[in-house]
Amino acid sequence: MVKMISEFKDGDRISGQFLVSNSAKCLNNAGAAYMNLELKDSSGNINAKKWDASESDESLFSIGSVVYIEGDVLKYKESLQLKVSSAKPVDNNDIDIAKFVKAPPVPKEELVKRFFAYVDSIQNEDCKKILDYLIKRLSPKLLDHPAAVSVHHDYASGLLMHTVSMADVADFLCKYYPNINRDILISGILLHDMGKTIELEGPIVFKYSIEGKLLGHISIMVSEIRRAAEGLKITSEVPLLLEHMVLSHHGSPEFGSPVLPLTREALLLSLIDNMDSKMVIVDKALENVNPGEFSTKVFPLDNRTLYKPKE
Amino acid sequence: MVKMISEFKDGDRISGQFLVSNSAKCLNNAGAAYMNLELKDSSGNINAKKWDASESDESLFSIGSVVYIEGDVLKYKESLQLKVSSAKPVDNNDIDIAKFVKAPPVPKEELVKRFFAYVDSIQNEDCKKILDYLIKRLSPKLLDHPAAVSVHHDYASGLLMHTVSMADVADFLCKYYPNINRDILISGILLHDMGKTIELEGPIVFKYSIEGKLLGHISIMVSEIRRAAEGLKITSEVPLLLEHMVLSHHGSPEFGSPVLPLTREALLLSLIDNMDSKMVIVDKALENVNPGEFSTKVFPLDNRTLYKPKE
Amino acid sequence: MVKMISEFKDGDRISGQFLVSNSAKCLNNAGAAYMNLELKDSSGNINAKKWDASESDESLFSIGSVVYIEGDVLKYKESLQLKVSSAKPVDNNDIDIAKFVKAPPVPKEELVKRFFAYVDSIQNEDCKKILDYLIKRLSPKLLDHPAAVSVHHDYASGLLMHTVSMADVADFLCKYYPNINRDILISGILLHDMGKTIELEGPIVFKYSIEGKLLGHISIMVSEIRRAAEGLKITSEVPLLLEHMVLSHHGSPEFGSPVLPLTREALLLSLIDNMDSKMVIVDKALENVNPGEFSTKVFPLDNRTLYKPKE
Amino acid sequence: MVKMISEFKDGDRISGQFLVSNSAKCLNNAGAAYMNLELKDSSGNINAKKWDASESDESLFSIGSVVYIEGDVLKYKESLQLKVSSAKPVDNNDIDIAKFVKAPPVPKEELVKRFFAYVDSIQNEDCKKILDYLIKRLSPKLLDHPAAVSVHHDYASGLLMHTVSMADVADFLCKYYPNINRDILISGILLHDMGKTIELEGPIVFKYSIEGKLLGHISIMVSEIRRAAEGLKITSEVPLLLEHMVLSHHGSPEFGSPVLPLTREALLLSLIDNMDSKMVIVDKALENVNPGEFSTKVFPLDNRTLYKPKE
Amino acid sequence: MVKMISEFKDGDRISGQFLVSNSAKCLNNAGAAYMNLELKDSSGNINAKKWDASESDESLFSIGSVVYIEGDVLKYKESLQLKVSSAKPVDNNDIDIAKFVKAPPVPKEELVKRFFAYVDSIQNEDCKKILDYLIKRLSPKLLDHPAAVSVHHDYASGLLMHTVSMADVADFLCKYYPNINRDILISGILLHDMGKTIELEGPIVFKYSIEGKLLGHISIMVSEIRRAAEGLKITSEVPLLLEHMVLSHHGSPEFGSPVLPLTREALLLSLIDNMDSKMVIVDKALENVNPGEFSTKVFPLDNRTLYKPKE
Amino acid sequence: MVKMISEFKDGDRISGQFLVSNSAKCLNNAGAAYMNLELKDSSGNINAKKWDASESDESLFSIGSVVYIEGDVLKYKESLQLKVSSAKPVDNNDIDIAKFVKAPPVPKEELVKRFFAYVDSIQNEDCKKILDYLIKRLSPKLLDHPAAVSVHHDYASGLLMHTVSMADVADFLCKYYPNINRDILISGILLHDMGKTIELEGPIVFKYSIEGKLLGHISIMVSEIRRAAEGLKITSEVPLLLEHMVLSHHGSPEFGSPVLPLTREALLLSLIDNMDSKMVIVDKALENVNPGEFSTKVFPLDNRTLYKPKE
Repeated sequence: MVKMISEFKDGDRISGQFLVSNSAKCLNNAGAAYMNLELKDSSGNINAKKWDASESDESLFSIGSVVYIEGDVLKYKESLQLKVSSAKPVDNNDIDIAKFVKAPPVPKEELVKRFFAYVDSIQNEDCKKILDYLIKRLSPKLLDHPAAVSVHHDYASGLLMHTVSMADVADFLCKYYPNINRDILISGILLHDMGKTIELEGPIVFKYSIEGKLLGHISIMVSEIRRAAEGLKITSEVPLLLEHMVLSHHGSPEFGSPVLPLTREALLLSLIDNMDSKMVIVDKALENVNPGEFSTKVFPLDNRTLYKPKE
Repeated sequence: MVKMISEFKDGDRISGQFLVSNSAKCLNNAGAAYMNLELKDSSGNINAKKWDASESDESLFSIGSVVYIEGDVLKYKESLQLKVSSAKPVDNNDIDIAKFVKAPPVPKEELVKRFFAYVDSIQNEDCKKILDYLIKRLSPKLLDHPAAVSVHHDYASGLLMHTVSMADVADFLCKYYPNINRDILISGILLHDMGKTIELEGPIVFKYSIEGKLLGHISIMVSEIRRAAEGLKITSEVPLLLEHMVLSHHGSPEFGSPVLPLTREALLLSLIDNMDSKMVIVDKALENVNPGEFSTKVFPLDNRTLYKPKE
Repeated sequence: MVKMISEFKDGDRISGQFLVSNSAKCLNNAGAAYMNLELKDSSGNINAKKWDASESDESLFSIGSVVYIEGDVLKYKESLQLKVSSAKPVDNNDIDIAKFVKAPPVPKEELVKRFFAYVDSIQNEDCKKILDYLIKRLSPKLLDHPAAVSVHHDYASGLLMHTVSMADVADFLCKYYPNINRDILISGILLHDMGKTIELEGPIVFKYSIEGKLLGHISIMVSEIRRAAEGLKITSEVPLLLEHMVLSHHGSPEFGSPVLPLTREALLLSLIDNMDSKMVIVDKALENVNPGEFSTKVFPLDNRTLYKPKE
Repeated sequence: MVKMISEFKDGDRISGQFLVSNSAKCLNNAGAAYMNLELKDSSGNINAKKWDASESDESLFSIGSVVYIEGDVLKYKESLQLKVSSAKPVDNNDIDIAKFVKAPPVPKEELVKRFFAYVDSIQNEDCKKILDYLIKRLSPKLLDHPAAVSVHHDYASGLLMHTVSMADVADFLCKYYPNINRDILISGILLHDMGKTIELEGPIVFKYSIEGKLLGHISIMVSEIRRAAEGLKITSEVPLLLEHMVLSHHGSPEFGSPVLPLTREALLLSLIDNMDSKMVIVDKALENVNPGEFSTKVFPLDNRTLYKPKE
Repeated sequence: MVKMISEFKDGDRISGQFLVSNSAKCLNNAGAAYMNLELKDSSGNINAKKWDASESDESLFSIGSVVYIEGDVLKYKESLQLKVSSAKPVDNNDIDIAKFVKAPPVPKEELVKRFFAYVDSIQNEDCKKILDYLIKRLSPKLLDHPAAVSVHHDYASGLLMHTVSMADVADFLCKYYPNINRDILISGILLHDMGKTIELEGPIVFKYSIEGKLLGHISIMVSEIRRAAEGLKITSEVPLLLEHMVLSHHGSPEFGSPVLPLTREALLLSLIDNMDSKMVIVDKALENVNPGEFSTKVFPLDNRTLYKPKE
Repeated sequence: MVKMISEFKDGDRISGQFLVSNSAKCLNNAGAAYMNLELKDSSGNINAKKWDASESDESLFSIGSVVYIEGDVLKYKESLQLKVSSAKPVDNNDIDIAKFVKAPPVPKEELVKRFFAYVDSIQNEDCKKILDYLIKRLSPKLLDHPAAVSVHHDYASGLLMHTVSMADVADFLCKYYPNINRDILISGILLHDMGKTIELEGPIVFKYSIEGKLLGHISIMVSEIRRAAEGLKITSEVPLLLEHMVLSHHGSPEFGSPVLPLTREALLLSLIDNMDSKMVIVDKALENVNPGEFSTKVFPLDNRTLYKPKE
């Protein structure tokens, strides 16, 4: 039977792909080795046991990998547990990603459409060339990438969702602040976090690549723009302005930007990024809070506890 | 002849109101006392001398006061100077404020209309009552007040301009972030800086009142809302939410907010306030900068120098 | 048998009120639900089990509530345990507070007497009126309130104890620093922490109220004074000075005061508050330390470990 | 005629000692060198000119030195000026210190009496021995020393005044906080700033000695106590406790104490020191401020401006 | 059988000295007391049980003590365990230190030789006298002392190793920076951490002494140099320069130096100390990391994770 | 007569190139315009007047430019002054740089030789290729560039001097810390500041380029290495390690490095850079200080004043 974890019932015989989110080799009272596992899909997680663990089980069930499992659901101390009868590895290309990663709140097709509508709206030729070059170079990862390091807090195409959402706000503000150069601002937004496709890697559970740790997505992306501009033989000031926007978009050295935003567009980009990120965090933090109560501590907001008003 | 300072010519005989922006009693080589003055109107400033200063001249020409002056324009070392022949004080009620304070970029009538349109758009009754009560209480100062301490950096109705501008952005974002309670957010924005009408005082050159220094506009306004709510016998949570938004709108203790924003609306208000203030600062800083050059150091932006792109 | 927890013996049959300081619903090996509890009174705490937990037991034994319990004391793994045979809720008004909260080191009656002696010693009429108004408004909570959020570190009437203790020190220092206005200083001290009666709530275990979290006791109290002054039609500078003292008494923004102390009396109040709070913390921290040894880390003193000299 | 500067009149012929508080060699229009001087005594200061400056005049009139001068008072541009006719150096031992340094608010004899009364009140023998040894070693400077680096902000015996003042407060608080060891606390207070007699040097205008800059008065005094204890063959814990109090009395590393106060007495000493220093600063800052007005910025209190209430 | 822990095998009967690194009195299911112990020698650690614990066992097996143990090695849940059959205390003088503390990477004899070669290379007589005096006073601890508080991270003679290592670097740099006074720099390095022999105490597991906590090794050593200089009747500036180097060698107040390095030699000493300490930390952190992987978080390097390149 | 400024004498008639270090258009008493100038060469500076300033003089004498001047030296108020009789611009290519910039303490030829000796000593092929590529790309500026923004504090080839000096120290330390990869460390040092040739621009007085301000020399150089590696088709980890070293060499975000040094070589590079920079600053600061005295405040060393020992 193929089922999402949240639908498991005592007595089910199950088969399908599962993400190993925790794994440890243990000894039972009789001294026999077994694997104590936590398995996940996008609907939930379940404890699992693989008794009589073999030599190879430890690497098969390595944390972050996806494994094809057959087994039986049973009840133990009021909780469901999966007793694994057989298991085999799944090739990265065969992973059924939709099973593990939450869908974005807006369908991916819609996001892709809006993203490319913004690309098409750019009239400055140098901006356009650089965008086309880098989108091609970093696709298709660009379109599926989550915005942050872990599926725990994110969903598929999160990077795209965040980018399009910022562009929407920027598009409105361009009308509001007449001195803003819309082509530069929108181009900067479309590019600003693309370096994350190199900074973070992994089939489902994303983690920092070596390059990501040693350079960070900001420096990676600055180099990418410069390289693109040279390859495209662009001589205008545009690449410099775009590099500066990417370099400064975290707002200050303590948050990872070695230079402060020094142009109107760079400053506005960093402010929109800050606003949009925080509103997403607040929405998540208050999602399951009852009216008239406080959330638990919200780490990325200085550990404050947020309040949901009574009505 | 009545003229703005920027139009003065060598040989003009001048009469009219002037703001004393600097003043010092000096001795000439012969040991005689004279007043060395800097006079201002909204068009510019000029050095002036009142020879044979009397006892009372020092208080007549106190810095920040408006004086009615008659005198002659002459040229000295390539600059124009005003030789004051007679001077008398101007009563606060007779000051021709329009002569000293820059007009806002949008006409005051337009700002007032938009401000009250936002008030009218509020549907929550408790928000409405509190707004009506406090707008009445703090008018007409509310409608003319500059946003900051000094006319050097500001214009008439600056407070109104800043408030309406934030409300415009908020109005758009309410559509964008569906969980926002628009009535609460817009009401908070309309109220958030009203305490400045008590914090700052003066006919033209604004400075901190004693109350402003000992309490600050944030604490003043929190008390005003509480007092209003009690007088209006409001028992809902609305006054608490509005007080919290005012109290937290500077974002953190180091910027004057003793509590962090803990509701969705409070956080968004502080982010919009931050964004709108910074964009105004950037516009001023880059106003007279040539393309391809940097501004001087911008104090309220951590002394950075801003860049205006080449085109 | 009615007994304090510290006097329980193996085999006792016990009845009486207990504070639930910890509570969890668990399953035994046989899959049956039971409540695992920690019960407290002012003498100590004990583990308790309520076997065969019913649906309603989870809310009955909610943390922070007081419950009337009958049961048997028994010994398990060298520790005493209470086996609960029956339990029922206690109405807030019926709680025997003296059983749960440590008595203050000085009897409450004595503290109340000294508190009102300070009130009576004030000669400035406006100070007097405001004090009378607010004491009446915030009594009787004012006289019983602990000084901090939890009985773990505090005793009944702790707020009164701290207030009277500061007033004693201030009274001496007024003689020492002749420029101090005693009426203002003593009034400020009597008022400074009264907002805690609104900030913290609960029958025994105090926790932050919604108002406490969204505004804090400082802002709450500033509004209270302003409201009192308006109701009393006071036109002197006294309310402003008292509001400023309350607003600034934590000494700096990082500790919750949005303005720095700007008057002699406000500065001295904040220094005495700091001194008296720290000396109380030191006394508690060294209470059970042997001469020649160090305390454990003291969190409110930057985690330092304090030393008790050998002699 | 011998007169204090504040009593100088146009036409006076003057002789006496003066402190050179500023000095520069200048050229007049004719190219001739002259000394442009500022002279001080405790009553005020005056501009002075020594025309036809010789080679040796530059070192004679070095800043901080005391010079015996004869000359004439005259009026120049509404101000008095002293035309120096002759000048000669004054030996350090012949300086009439009382002419230059403000008398303390309490007579020195009274301060000395109270200081030694505190010494006599100590009953712990080891404290007593160390005090006697170090007072003898550092007298008579100890009794005359100002508390800070410059006569601009201080008066003679300022160190003694500050020490006795702190001891008075401590004496009261010992009754209030019963766990305090009075002998240790009072001894620590008497010793805590004695290192300043080595840190600062100069006949009248005090400045940091080389030792003062390279070690600081805190480290100097810790070594002095240790050396005294060894010479006196004291084996109790007393010297260690006193050294710790001196070492920690600035309260934290950022203010110059490499260790935090870790004993009750060390913590109380640092709190009393902080309080007494701040109250002295406030008194000075508000000395010449009118009721209802603010002081200028007070540097040692984070540049705040202090308010003197209306009455 | 006498064996190092890493060589234990199931069934061995063992006797010898062991360091108690963890100890707890527990109850078994039958309610009988036993000691649950962790024992260490320099080769590793092992869990041990002493069944039927007597009253005195808790103090015998106090953490940090060395105990002579006889017992049997057995296998439990795949791990080895030592069943203690008898145990008795070991006198501090009889402890076989070499069994517990890792040998330094360079033999102690070699380190001692190089240390005294540096002492002999000093030509300034005052430096030489102070060094001789203090080395004699603080030996033999000086030669065996670890550099830090715990054997977990250190080895015997670690202090000597660190000192000689810094002297080697300094010796090279003296040639490189010609203005450095080699005698002063090398003397400062030889002295700079000697205070740790007083700050830390213990037979094997070192911990802070009372003096160490109340004063710190820096202040202790400054006093030692001053005392030495006085005893040796040295009148040159040398002791002051050496005291300053010790006092400032942590570089800034936040790291424990109340004065900043103000001489060339003091600054260079602090830079070499910083460099040598960090390189040692890096070596330890990367010791067991595979090429192409990151270390765990390194606490003394701001919790960064270090990278070992692929080859 | 062609002379360095320090050799000017009253009455000299002078011709030659001068750097305009300050320039202002002024009016004399008669209302006529003149240029008030400060001229510099590497030997010193002199005040100069160009009377009867023409329209074009203001741009001719722009600050930072080099001008060919003929004029007369005369004495005014005890100082020498140059009266400019004629002046004309100097083409950048014709500037006699050696006249304005101090020679390095080691001859440039020697520095170049040592620099290329280090390049030749690299055995890793990928390091070698990248070095060769970038040295070629950034020469000849690389060999002449000062290390910092202004000739006031620097000399010709300062960048080369600093680089070679660091390489010397690194070369020694590689022997000392055996785990260091010498090729990586030395290559990183040779590359680490090369971005300054793009960050700073100007014929003599260097200032930040637009690219320098918007990106900074660190980000510029990271992109250069990446571009080089791609052009050279290098696939090893070497470029990533070199980019990381450049990116992290300021040690922490507050000093401009967005990532902390995470490899052994990156950490050591940042430590050597810090040490060598500080020793150069100290040498300059103490250059003209007498033994037994303190320097003025040294800005790049936290404004401390340095002490030069008595001997």
